[in-house]
Amino acid sequence: MNSTHALPAELDAAVAFDAEGLVPAIAQQHDSGEVLMMAWMNRAALAETLATGRICYWSRSRGRLWRKGESSGQVQRLVDLRIDCDGDTLLLKVDQTGVACHTGRRSCFYRGLRNGRLEELMPVERDPRSLYGG
Amino acid sequence: MNSTHALPAELDAAVAFDAEGLVPAIAQQHDSGEVLMMAWMNRAALAETLATGRICYWSRSRGRLWRKGESSGQVQRLVDLRIDCDGDTLLLKVDQTGVACHTGRRSCFYRGLRNGRLEELMPVERDPRSLYGG
Repeated sequence: MNSTHALPAELDAAVAFDAEGLVPAIAQQHDSGEVLMMAWMNRAALAETLATGRICYWSRSRGRLWRKGESSGQVQRLVDLRIDCDGDTLLLKVDQTGVACHTGRRSCFYRGLRNGRLEELMPVERDPRSLYGG
Repeated sequence: MNSTHALPAELDAAVAFDAEGLVPAIAQQHDSGEVLMMAWMNRAALAETLATGRICYWSRSRGRLWRKGESSGQVQRLVDLRIDCDGDTLLLKVDQTGVACHTGRRSCFYRGLRNGRLEELMPVERDPRSLYGG
């Protein structure tokens, strides 16, 4: 844990990190109520988020801190932090710049079940190549 | 897996259940946008939910299917099922009867960080003893 930031003691005591030191964090656009994505935080990611006001997750696939938008510019600013009754899930009320999803859609939850089939319900708003310089 | 229900094939292929056969499911009130809770589903819980239209989770603490509201009467009806870009999180758009939280609050995310302290931001709407017969 190389974080230079500390968590508020009451929050630190309340968060039930799992066996891998992670807690799921739901990102919701603060004003519209859109659920944008779900990702994971460890203690350092949460502490950095609170210290900077910019959402930082823990990337399980890359095994490192992931400052949302660090490649794409599609950052999330923290507006409010909520924690659930048993402390094992966080709800981040955020202000999302542009699109949350790496596919260029506003939300990662763009597929819905319709008559037993998965349909894409949201348009691609940004070309992923423009987000990642591909 | 004792489920008598099957998942639609396309959905079954899309859901990335974890090593324990579970996937996190976020419940959001379909019209207001409130994020109510996050719980887990296994394949049987998801299949039952789709077959019945009533949300069924997998209770990790009790190690069994958990038909939301089976004790409290505070059921969730499925309005829409969404899945995220990498298939490892579900978003359930639901119609929540009464309160989602076992504490009697509308949402489990009733605590928020205010000046470094956790504050309770939602009232108890239902006495938990009235929900669980305590």
